Amino acid sequence: MSFQTNEYFDGNVASIAFQSDTLPATVGVMEIGEYTFGTEAKEYMTVVSGSLTIKLLNTTEWKTYNAGETFEVEANSSFDVKVTVQTAYLCLYEK
Amino acid sequence: MSFQTNEYFDGNVASIAFQSDTLPATVGVMEIGEYTFGTEAKEYMTVVSGSLTIKLLNTTEWKTYNAGETFEVEANSSFDVKVTVQTAYLCLYEK
Repeated sequence: MSFQTNEYFDGNVASIAFQSDTLPATVGVMEIGEYTFGTEAKEYMTVVSGSLTIKLLNTTEWKTYNAGETFEVEANSSFDVKVTVQTAYLCLYEK
Repeated sequence: MSFQTNEYFDGNVASIAFQSDTLPATVGVMEIGEYTFGTEAKEYMTVVSGSLTIKLLNTTEWKTYNAGETFEVEANSSFDVKVTVQTAYLCLYEK
C-alpha cells in the first residue's frame, strides 16, 4: 500500500491523501507565497502548523487562521491564500 | 522549490518535511498497522487526525493519543505504534 502524494504550484504545495475517520482528507505543506485554490467538493481546512491568510471567492476580507483553526470553503468555488511561513494543513473533503 | 517526501514501511507511512516556525518538522500519514520508529533527535508528535496508541522504549504501558494530543519521544530512543484508522500526524524535531 502506498499513499498518493501530489504536488501543486511547481512543488510549492505538496500533499498526501488519506481516509480520515470521517471524510476523505489530505495533509500537506505550503511554501511561503501566494496561491489560488479551486474547490470541487466542500472543504474544511485546518491549519496544523504556521498560518494561512485567506480570502474566499466573492469576498473582500482577508482573514488569518493559525494552528488549530479551521475555515470552510464552498464546493465549486475558490480561495486566495497568502503564506508567510512554511505551513502545514489538514483538508477534509465533503462527499 | 520542492518539499522532500519520504516513505517508510513499504509505503505504509508517508511524510513531507518542512521548516515550522519553530523547529524542523514533518507531516505524515500512517496506514492501519503496527510500527516501531527509532528517533535521533527528540521528537514532539502531535496527532492531527485519527489516533495513535504508543509505547515508549523501556516502558510497558500503551497509551492512546487522539487528534490534538501530543507525546514526546527522547532522542536516540524508539517507540511502538498501533494504528487502527489511517492517521495523520505532525512531528517536530528538536535541534
